[in-house]
Amino acid sequence: MGGELRFVQGNEACVEAALYAGLDFFAGYPITPSTEIAEMMAERLPRKGGTFLQMEDEIASICAIIGASLTGRKVMTATSGPGFSLMQEGLGYAIMAEIPCVIVDVQRGGPSTGLPTKGSQGDVNQARWGVHGDHAIIALTASNHQDVFSITVDAFNFSETFRTPVILLLDEVIGHMREKLEVPAPGEVALVERLKTSVREGVDYHPYLPREDGRLPMSDFGGVHRYNVTGLFHDMWGFPSEKPEVVHGLLRHLVDKIENHIKDVTRYREYFVEEAETLLISYGSAARSALHVVMNRRPRGEPLGLLELQTLWPFPAELVREKAKNARHIVMVEMNMGQVLQSVKSAVDRPDRVFLANRVDGMLIAPADIQNILRLIQGKGV
Amino acid sequence: MGGELRFVQGNEACVEAALYAGLDFFAGYPITPSTEIAEMMAERLPRKGGTFLQMEDEIASICAIIGASLTGRKVMTATSGPGFSLMQEGLGYAIMAEIPCVIVDVQRGGPSTGLPTKGSQGDVNQARWGVHGDHAIIALTASNHQDVFSITVDAFNFSETFRTPVILLLDEVIGHMREKLEVPAPGEVALVERLKTSVREGVDYHPYLPREDGRLPMSDFGGVHRYNVTGLFHDMWGFPSEKPEVVHGLLRHLVDKIENHIKDVTRYREYFVEEAETLLISYGSAARSALHVVMNRRPRGEPLGLLELQTLWPFPAELVREKAKNARHIVMVEMNMGQVLQSVKSAVDRPDRVFLANRVDGMLIAPADIQNILRLIQGKGV
Amino acid sequence: MGGELRFVQGNEACVEAALYAGLDFFAGYPITPSTEIAEMMAERLPRKGGTFLQMEDEIASICAIIGASLTGRKVMTATSGPGFSLMQEGLGYAIMAEIPCVIVDVQRGGPSTGLPTKGSQGDVNQARWGVHGDHAIIALTASNHQDVFSITVDAFNFSETFRTPVILLLDEVIGHMREKLEVPAPGEVALVERLKTSVREGVDYHPYLPREDGRLPMSDFGGVHRYNVTGLFHDMWGFPSEKPEVVHGLLRHLVDKIENHIKDVTRYREYFVEEAETLLISYGSAARSALHVVMNRRPRGEPLGLLELQTLWPFPAELVREKAKNARHIVMVEMNMGQVLQSVKSAVDRPDRVFLANRVDGMLIAPADIQNILRLIQGKGV
Amino acid sequence: MGGELRFVQGNEACVEAALYAGLDFFAGYPITPSTEIAEMMAERLPRKGGTFLQMEDEIASICAIIGASLTGRKVMTATSGPGFSLMQEGLGYAIMAEIPCVIVDVQRGGPSTGLPTKGSQGDVNQARWGVHGDHAIIALTASNHQDVFSITVDAFNFSETFRTPVILLLDEVIGHMREKLEVPAPGEVALVERLKTSVREGVDYHPYLPREDGRLPMSDFGGVHRYNVTGLFHDMWGFPSEKPEVVHGLLRHLVDKIENHIKDVTRYREYFVEEAETLLISYGSAARSALHVVMNRRPRGEPLGLLELQTLWPFPAELVREKAKNARHIVMVEMNMGQVLQSVKSAVDRPDRVFLANRVDGMLIAPADIQNILRLIQGKGV
Repeated sequence: MGGELRFVQGNEACVEAALYAGLDFFAGYPITPSTEIAEMMAERLPRKGGTFLQMEDEIASICAIIGASLTGRKVMTATSGPGFSLMQEGLGYAIMAEIPCVIVDVQRGGPSTGLPTKGSQGDVNQARWGVHGDHAIIALTASNHQDVFSITVDAFNFSETFRTPVILLLDEVIGHMREKLEVPAPGEVALVERLKTSVREGVDYHPYLPREDGRLPMSDFGGVHRYNVTGLFHDMWGFPSEKPEVVHGLLRHLVDKIENHIKDVTRYREYFVEEAETLLISYGSAARSALHVVMNRRPRGEPLGLLELQTLWPFPAELVREKAKNARHIVMVEMNMGQVLQSVKSAVDRPDRVFLANRVDGMLIAPADIQNILRLIQGKGV
Repeated sequence: MGGELRFVQGNEACVEAALYAGLDFFAGYPITPSTEIAEMMAERLPRKGGTFLQMEDEIASICAIIGASLTGRKVMTATSGPGFSLMQEGLGYAIMAEIPCVIVDVQRGGPSTGLPTKGSQGDVNQARWGVHGDHAIIALTASNHQDVFSITVDAFNFSETFRTPVILLLDEVIGHMREKLEVPAPGEVALVERLKTSVREGVDYHPYLPREDGRLPMSDFGGVHRYNVTGLFHDMWGFPSEKPEVVHGLLRHLVDKIENHIKDVTRYREYFVEEAETLLISYGSAARSALHVVMNRRPRGEPLGLLELQTLWPFPAELVREKAKNARHIVMVEMNMGQVLQSVKSAVDRPDRVFLANRVDGMLIAPADIQNILRLIQGKGV
Repeated sequence: MGGELRFVQGNEACVEAALYAGLDFFAGYPITPSTEIAEMMAERLPRKGGTFLQMEDEIASICAIIGASLTGRKVMTATSGPGFSLMQEGLGYAIMAEIPCVIVDVQRGGPSTGLPTKGSQGDVNQARWGVHGDHAIIALTASNHQDVFSITVDAFNFSETFRTPVILLLDEVIGHMREKLEVPAPGEVALVERLKTSVREGVDYHPYLPREDGRLPMSDFGGVHRYNVTGLFHDMWGFPSEKPEVVHGLLRHLVDKIENHIKDVTRYREYFVEEAETLLISYGSAARSALHVVMNRRPRGEPLGLLELQTLWPFPAELVREKAKNARHIVMVEMNMGQVLQSVKSAVDRPDRVFLANRVDGMLIAPADIQNILRLIQGKGV
Repeated sequence: MGGELRFVQGNEACVEAALYAGLDFFAGYPITPSTEIAEMMAERLPRKGGTFLQMEDEIASICAIIGASLTGRKVMTATSGPGFSLMQEGLGYAIMAEIPCVIVDVQRGGPSTGLPTKGSQGDVNQARWGVHGDHAIIALTASNHQDVFSITVDAFNFSETFRTPVILLLDEVIGHMREKLEVPAPGEVALVERLKTSVREGVDYHPYLPREDGRLPMSDFGGVHRYNVTGLFHDMWGFPSEKPEVVHGLLRHLVDKIENHIKDVTRYREYFVEEAETLLISYGSAARSALHVVMNRRPRGEPLGLLELQTLWPFPAELVREKAKNARHIVMVEMNMGQVLQSVKSAVDRPDRVFLANRVDGMLIAPADIQNILRLIQGKGV
């Protein structure tokens, strides 16, 4: 890349990427460990003509970005666990009304106010199931700042492509850690812009009539078309409907537009997966320690490999099954009680080969923790 | 039972049971299809000396019952999907601070405002994972009013026994359907009362120091002891702590007190499970149709059986594995896209034998729907 | 049993049993944690007409008991790791010359002087292979004082039956712990007395000509027959021989007399082995914690079982394979780096199912240690 | 090589190599079949300024070399089975105190005094487990004099690199057989010299504080630093400690410094392993016959191969699994009752494919013996 080289926090990498991706509206309510995102946005966004709003709480924040997105803006908010819990109702509205937006959850220890300044990966299943009712969601994560940049741009691109909220699941360690980031030059990374309707003023615009490819062109709210947006099940005009075939059709559309594009939205990295007898699977900050173990132990003859997931939802089950098929042991490395573990177990052929290497005490899982657990599951004791 | 016979809605059965169980504080914000619960509470509770509060929203509602519970009351709130989403932050606080309370979610179609007057079972996974951070939860359901009564009393009993919020997952069909209910005579059903500390005034009370059996005696807030209650990780005095061993210990306590008592909190019914070649598994209103199919087809020689789950969380995996071990086909009957299906697949030995019979269009899944699906999975086509 | 009830250390239980078994010669050099054995012998043995010798070191000790045994005495010495290392040459002599004797090793932490006052089970493989050259050995252990009594009597009985040294592998925890012991009444437990030759004075006695059943009748040294005893390979007169067929025959005799009687010398206890999905295998003090875990977790629905080995050598491979054949997980619980683990892995059909729960820091492996390891190998993380 | 060509016994090859490696202190007590080593040392060592001590027994011998090593000398002793048994306690001390030394065991038939002038490979397992307590050890062997030279130099190099005793397991056949040896020119083979501390006089030297690479620099005893050396578990100053974390840390260090460098210390030769349908595995003198069979039968179309192990401990399990993975039959050729056989069985995927070709009557296993056994396991009878 020919871009600018910086030494930044993960939260900053996220901000840089959002600005790069074309963000022009941010509303938020600061909460540790996501606060630096709001802080930098307050400084950077107005300078480039965008809008920064500090809201009174997290519910207001997500509602603000939903409204702004409808008017044609690229939008984001950032929070941590307690705020993310408060956003679940608004998030469901954005899913139902198909409104592009990016929600960053810089995870800290939970439940409740939990551990404000300590890392965790405890919100993974909430990102999937925090909203009531059947639905699908895209949730991304990364383990280093260059990848935080990439997946943040992906988040905006996926959000526009599929007209859906996208969750960025960072964590305290990534958010606050400093390392090198090379910001790409403008144009170097492809950006997906809002798909706007070609229907002209005065002609009937059907806001929820999918094109042949399934995509829904938007019309800026307050612009030339008047139309209805609702959280109720609705027809192609956006008007509420309880007709079973309409309800069924809309729900399948909301789920299929994401689940059927699982390959397009799956991001991952792999290290020595082919030759691995013991395959580590990890993501986010935990994947840093997992990678360290692999790099450190392979030269000593241990056939370790790492599959680092960057897309957590929709869960890339086919990918995981494929990559894990030759491994004798599969070790899920995560900083919770086994939230992705369950998805991995469901994906692979022999769930009894899958083990959990974890920490749930607010401390980053260290390479030594992983190695100790590897010893135990290899039957070698302490 | 020697009790009073009534012809009631499921929502009323829930109210009767809550009053029977000793409820004396209810706060809520009405939402279809749970509104009758608040309505009846407004009428009945003050008469028996209890408190009914109509709150300004669902967040206020759950916070009100948490506070009241701390002062020694048995408490409940009731809502539906959108309101349940808003309650997730408060729910997490109750989990962390170990405050007994019962939350009723009379499910309607979602996500978002969805289908206010139509049934669904779409909030099952949200009941498990709507709160951020690792945690455990108890969630109960039932398919008829007598069982709604029983599991509502269970909900209060479990809540007091384990100092934990308990979710009652009813659904619109159950909530609004009328059928016979026999209210037991007082004393006929065992009730668990608040475990209060025996520590006297002026002596140090440790609000979060478990007894040998793991239980935590409470002291009414505003009473003789002053102590700290927080959503942060905390020590035995209730004061915040980030010490890894304290954090790890508290989190394991919160999870183990429920997961290790899975047998005590598992409620289910079974019909011809032993002889079933095709085992239906279902719960809530869907289980009514499943039972109808079993009762209707068995006389014709079809080896069908039904396992009706009343405890959905913690998921009774051992029970399901045991009951399903002889079945050739397992058919999960539910009104969502397969939320309990995943847990069943993880529980059984051969997940490829598990099929899904469902509807997601707001209509009750009918016996004919199930029979059509049975034909298909038995290879008989439509 | 109608015997005397006492509250004793494990070392005392061993002394009581040795006296019960007919011990009348003890030579030793005190070393922690075996010292109480020598101490009590010094007090008790002379009173019953036996001989106690405090020797200058462990080499002298084993040589003294070998000599005494040849004169017709039932003999024992007791030591710990460092002393047991010094005894290996003498032990090999006793094996080759087929001299009945019992050697107690009250294990402490090793290697070298290691941890004199802390428990360990680190000498298990040394008991098998500390002597140079091919050979077989009997080594017994126990986890409670009643069983220490039984296997000590067994040790003398096996020693006489097979004309072989027998190792008693106690450990510091068992040796120093006090618990109840009921000493059987005389005659209640069967004793094997020395098999003496019926060859009369003046007639040729062949000290190494086996009877049809493989046993070798002895003649008290210094008595009516003169014969040769040597550590060299030897013929039926006891004279050295390098003839390949003599060498081969003697070596096979020394090994087969033990390996072919493996069922006769196998002692074990089992708890819920048949129904166990997770089978613990343990011995000695570690088995106490393993049993505690089984008894504590089974009522909560965990299908645990325990196979407690009392005979470690010859390793009862058939027994272990049979008992382990239905278990999903096999967890070896021992206080070393996995010494019996290897034998268990070799014995069972699927070695990859075998895990190690251990401690190697001088502390008794506690039930909590085992439970934490069970969580990890069941894939449940910390 | 440009070195000197000689026609020597294996024992002499060992002496030449020790001198080449920089040996300057030898203490021993002669025993057949190792006697020539002491004899030649007595002659050669003083001439080059080194020290030869004939000790009163084997215990004194190993203690003498341990002490000399601490003062900065490169040291060796040589013995056979009975003497090796007597050295086990001293050997454990050298392991615990991390003192470089080389112990040669020229194996003869055992147990006990056994067969002084006949070959055997019966001490292999004693080399691993003769010392009480958990520990690791390096043991090397060779089948011809050029390799005896090489692995003797390796023994000194490994001993210095890892601060550990190294066992040279020769056998009577190798020790007494004469064949060609080309002694390399000085400098031709790399030598590892003692790693000495750079800590100066008057500054605190921590004798047991590992460098980042795990190595422990030494300070010559009697030199500028005073420090403690003990066989007890000890801290970084060498002072005794019973702290569980110190004990655990030291024990893992003692084992890991060897087990984690298994690739660095593995020496082997292979002949036609890739194409072998029947893979012989052997070592020492037995490998000569195995090689003869391979070379003799391959031209006749028999797909035989040979893996000759020179490092027996730590057992190169990964190497053996890898080399054996394509073979239909694996035949372990050794002169004992199957001591390496067990390690091979544990290492390979299908232990049922592993057979034993052995002799235990003091005679070298001959090519004809191996060929007879090959016929039998190929189902061709005698």
